[in-house]
Amino acid sequence: MKHECECDVDRRKLLIGASAVAAGALVMSNSIAGFVSNAQASGVTKYPYKKLDEQEVGRIAYETYFTKFCAETTITGLFQPLAKSVGEPYASFPLGSLFWAHGGMMGWGTACGTLIGTGMAIGLITSGDATKVTTPKGRAPVPVGDAIINDVIAYYANESLPKYVPAAGKEQYKVKNQSVSDTPLCHVSVGKWMKKEDVKFFGIERKERCARISADIAMYTAKLLNEWAAGTYKPRNEPLANALNNGITSQTNCGECHGANVPTAKS
Amino acid sequence: MKHECECDVDRRKLLIGASAVAAGALVMSNSIAGFVSNAQASGVTKYPYKKLDEQEVGRIAYETYFTKFCAETTITGLFQPLAKSVGEPYASFPLGSLFWAHGGMMGWGTACGTLIGTGMAIGLITSGDATKVTTPKGRAPVPVGDAIINDVIAYYANESLPKYVPAAGKEQYKVKNQSVSDTPLCHVSVGKWMKKEDVKFFGIERKERCARISADIAMYTAKLLNEWAAGTYKPRNEPLANALNNGITSQTNCGECHGANVPTAKS
Repeated sequence: MKHECECDVDRRKLLIGASAVAAGALVMSNSIAGFVSNAQASGVTKYPYKKLDEQEVGRIAYETYFTKFCAETTITGLFQPLAKSVGEPYASFPLGSLFWAHGGMMGWGTACGTLIGTGMAIGLITSGDATKVTTPKGRAPVPVGDAIINDVIAYYANESLPKYVPAAGKEQYKVKNQSVSDTPLCHVSVGKWMKKEDVKFFGIERKERCARISADIAMYTAKLLNEWAAGTYKPRNEPLANALNNGITSQTNCGECHGANVPTAKS
Repeated sequence: MKHECECDVDRRKLLIGASAVAAGALVMSNSIAGFVSNAQASGVTKYPYKKLDEQEVGRIAYETYFTKFCAETTITGLFQPLAKSVGEPYASFPLGSLFWAHGGMMGWGTACGTLIGTGMAIGLITSGDATKVTTPKGRAPVPVGDAIINDVIAYYANESLPKYVPAAGKEQYKVKNQSVSDTPLCHVSVGKWMKKEDVKFFGIERKERCARISADIAMYTAKLLNEWAAGTYKPRNEPLANALNNGITSQTNCGECHGANVPTAKS
């Protein structure tokens, strides 16, 4: 069954005339200079980008976790170095405005706060770039920022995490296990790791794990943004694949909640 | 079993000396004027607030849905009137920076995009207000912005939605059913409604429902922010209740995924 995605259709209309559709899989990117000058013309605050040091981003995100929790970690890891290298508007961005997203939004266990923090950072940095990229499966091109965020979400869901190891003397607990969450959901992701590590939620063991994942997500975001700035980024994962394949916004792990009785979508 | 929440403990440390702990259930709020002047002193961009017209907020959010989808709707409904009444920084805020959150983050079905949009709006508006409020159950006070966001999430999960009815001639489809999602998750929320309404995801029926919910969430946010500005806001729901009660970040509907076999938390 073939679906026409509402998003692609409507966004084509929105961006028509303003976007450069990539030929092949590579981004036919506006240069950063062009992006900034477009942005200034539009009257909307823009966030000019300079290449980030992934290791520095990871260190800041990791250290931020122990006072600010997950939602602020990723955006702080990305924006703090940019505040030094670029200045405004990074320097005065209220990082505390993301606090509500911790614990999957105020502890409700929905999307991991690291993804909401990095989503806002990627959104602010790339939203002035109307460049569209072709997808791995050749579906209708999507804005480059959306493809980057989708790749970060897929990385969170599919990789064995945490990978980050803090500098000697920095760690609060020696993490023994990595786990694959198969989902961007805080509750499921942290629950699987807690079971494997055999630890409780309200303890330094779990905090150390989430601090390291904050570093992983911020570093992977920096890696993709650096590629975007260099004009070499291409999407790893098919944006909106789950929604299109399942006929509803969804994840890759339907069976984990539905068991063998995954409902059949009407379209 | 009594839990000490990590968030309350660490945030007390962070905010000590800067916060006014509310006596009783009402907010002992800084005045808006005081908030703005504190904000200017801190060197962080602040978002001064003026009372919103809930009906106008709802109309803008509803209408925004049909071109920008859920994530931009709520912040646009709130920021567009504030751009007129206050000006900067609302006027130049890049609303498009929220697009990635649609469909529960790029169609992954996690937190409803309306909540991520309104979370950012509430976060930006209230993050300079260090006022803390006592919770309905008298646990450690939390920052007022967190309590507001938690109440909006609970409203989304617990109310029979959509409530909003567009002006004559505006609706694209006559919605027949309301449903209670019991969760802030896009996938579950929209799936329950689709089943009740007997419609598919990729169609105007479901779009109309999500447009109306965008209005509902933006309007409820405006209502609570107006109370906050007037100094009359008090939390309706216990922040972090699910995480504390279940020993893990979580929702109110454990049985929907776990059935009768809800795991027992270690703490």
